[in-house]
Amino acid sequence: MKFNNLNVFVSPKAYIGKNVKIGDNTSIYDHVRIEDNTIIANNCVIGEPTNDYYFNPDYKNQETVIGPNSLIRSHCIIYSDCKFGDSFQAGHRVTIREKTTFGKSCRVGTLSDIQGHSSFGNNCWLHSNVHIGQKSTIGNFVFIYPYVVFTNDPTPPSNVCIGPTVGDYSQIAVFCVLLPGVKIGKHCLVGAGSIVGKDISDYQLVLGNPAKVVKDVREVKSRQTGESHYPWPLRFERGMPWEGIGFENWEKEQ
Amino acid sequence: MKFNNLNVFVSPKAYIGKNVKIGDNTSIYDHVRIEDNTIIANNCVIGEPTNDYYFNPDYKNQETVIGPNSLIRSHCIIYSDCKFGDSFQAGHRVTIREKTTFGKSCRVGTLSDIQGHSSFGNNCWLHSNVHIGQKSTIGNFVFIYPYVVFTNDPTPPSNVCIGPTVGDYSQIAVFCVLLPGVKIGKHCLVGAGSIVGKDISDYQLVLGNPAKVVKDVREVKSRQTGESHYPWPLRFERGMPWEGIGFENWEKEQ
Amino acid sequence: MKFNNLNVFVSPKAYIGKNVKIGDNTSIYDHVRIEDNTIIANNCVIGEPTNDYYFNPDYKNQETVIGPNSLIRSHCIIYSDCKFGDSFQAGHRVTIREKTTFGKSCRVGTLSDIQGHSSFGNNCWLHSNVHIGQKSTIGNFVFIYPYVVFTNDPTPPSNVCIGPTVGDYSQIAVFCVLLPGVKIGKHCLVGAGSIVGKDISDYQLVLGNPAKVVKDVREVKSRQTGESHYPWPLRFERGMPWEGIGFENWEKEQ
Repeated sequence: MKFNNLNVFVSPKAYIGKNVKIGDNTSIYDHVRIEDNTIIANNCVIGEPTNDYYFNPDYKNQETVIGPNSLIRSHCIIYSDCKFGDSFQAGHRVTIREKTTFGKSCRVGTLSDIQGHSSFGNNCWLHSNVHIGQKSTIGNFVFIYPYVVFTNDPTPPSNVCIGPTVGDYSQIAVFCVLLPGVKIGKHCLVGAGSIVGKDISDYQLVLGNPAKVVKDVREVKSRQTGESHYPWPLRFERGMPWEGIGFENWEKEQ
Repeated sequence: MKFNNLNVFVSPKAYIGKNVKIGDNTSIYDHVRIEDNTIIANNCVIGEPTNDYYFNPDYKNQETVIGPNSLIRSHCIIYSDCKFGDSFQAGHRVTIREKTTFGKSCRVGTLSDIQGHSSFGNNCWLHSNVHIGQKSTIGNFVFIYPYVVFTNDPTPPSNVCIGPTVGDYSQIAVFCVLLPGVKIGKHCLVGAGSIVGKDISDYQLVLGNPAKVVKDVREVKSRQTGESHYPWPLRFERGMPWEGIGFENWEKEQ
Repeated sequence: MKFNNLNVFVSPKAYIGKNVKIGDNTSIYDHVRIEDNTIIANNCVIGEPTNDYYFNPDYKNQETVIGPNSLIRSHCIIYSDCKFGDSFQAGHRVTIREKTTFGKSCRVGTLSDIQGHSSFGNNCWLHSNVHIGQKSTIGNFVFIYPYVVFTNDPTPPSNVCIGPTVGDYSQIAVFCVLLPGVKIGKHCLVGAGSIVGKDISDYQLVLGNPAKVVKDVREVKSRQTGESHYPWPLRFERGMPWEGIGFENWEKEQ
């Protein structure tokens, strides 16, 4: 249904791998590499030129690489000068600006807005409508829920840009704000609606505005099982590299 | 202006009723039924296939029905396996995933993101940028204001998915979060910026993080009139089935 | 890359100035004026008809003017009956409804949703995902950060619509709500996550839900310099008309 080759534009300067599908009404601009077995659905723009394109007659797109086995759903805009590892997945209407890198097996939900100049490790899952300001650094296995905002200007407006950092396995719940330059440790849980202005050490549950430490996440019980749910990699494996073998066994192999 | 039959794709397996208009750059996929007198504006995708489509060569779209006299504005994405009653209206860039049902006379605002597996009664009005997680159940005459999020995972990440429930005539103001499994009664008003983690009985005004009962909504006065404004159906009738006859008369006929 | 004249629709009733570029898959409807040296990128709709178009056979688009030297990025929807001054810039997927006016040198970020019937002065910068309800009035040099919502119905649902007012040089940080009819003075700073229900006089820093005055903004120091950062026009000039000459010199010339 989606691959009728209607109104598709692929630059002669783009590289399209084997068994790649490109949806109707999609444009692929210069110096984009789409690796094997990847699907770019309909109405997408891949390799969007940066601002300089409109004003500099000598402008050339930098390379953008979409890793193999990826699935980019409809209406996404991905700028030039980005890199995505294997098995990247995007929802609809995602916007990702230049100089963003994602490791392998990452997912970005519908309407998310990544402002560029940021890096994500492996297996990060961003749900719908996440806003990542420039200069953000996100580790591995980080989950970010809807309507979370990462900010970077401590005294707006200014020319200072210091993004937040989030450690491996941490989770940021719905409607949180990470204030400029904040560092969140590993295995943290930032509760819904928190505004985080201070650094958080590993394994902390924080909550509120301003966010304060509530307890160690290992003390948080599941309402369903009555047992401790965190660290979550011990209790959740769907889509994770330890699926079927368990986190502890997988970790030993790393 | 919008109906020049430019770059329109309609599947031969779609049904298009009488006096239907389809805008330029719109795609209608398999097993979509567009009932009479409905307008699908430009740049829409109706009958978007579910995830399985990309990986299963035997995939078939389930039926999607857009009721008669509906108006879907530009750039909407509506998945297969959804049902919309009469006189449905959508703003721009709305995304509605599979297994969502709407009763009659519902409206969904620009940028709203309905994650699927949810049901809405009649005459629900969702304003811009509402996010409804899976497994949500919404009654009749429910108003949801911008940037409201319905969540469903009590200990993220997990495989548990329990959505919120909202009773008839209730209203959820801007920037509220309904936490997983919460039940809101009838005729409630959830004030701006509330995070609701506990069930709320009928006619309550709740506010804050965590949301607490403030008073009975029937004690809330209008700043304009100085009189009680709630239950709102007694004071508001624009676009409602009791327009011109009054809520109490209409209710007797039900 | 973006200007191949593929699937472009320009109404014969539109006016296109000198040295204007129009991107692929863009539609320009009746009575749109695009002034000289302006770029409308790909997949935009300019001159979107109002609701009446769908139901009134005698409907005619009102004039929309996009000022000279403007840059509207891809996937924007701009309604008829709007006016934009010189050097307007829009990000991606911006939606601006009818009867919105912008002065010169304004910027609106990706995914912002301007509901119409509102006015902005000169040099306003709206970041991503700002929601401006109808009947809002914004002065000059106002900065609005991501996920800010301006509301207008004091007792929802009702037929009352009274929007907020924001004075010159004020800033509204991420995730703020301005409640209906609120007036924010000049040179104010509304801190992240505030819900503002009362009028705020000039030079106030306000914070919280409900927002309360914390201090005079002139007492706020920069973490970087240790010095007072506000009024910000004395410390920030990038893109401002006082760039290179200083605010105080520029102000004398006004």
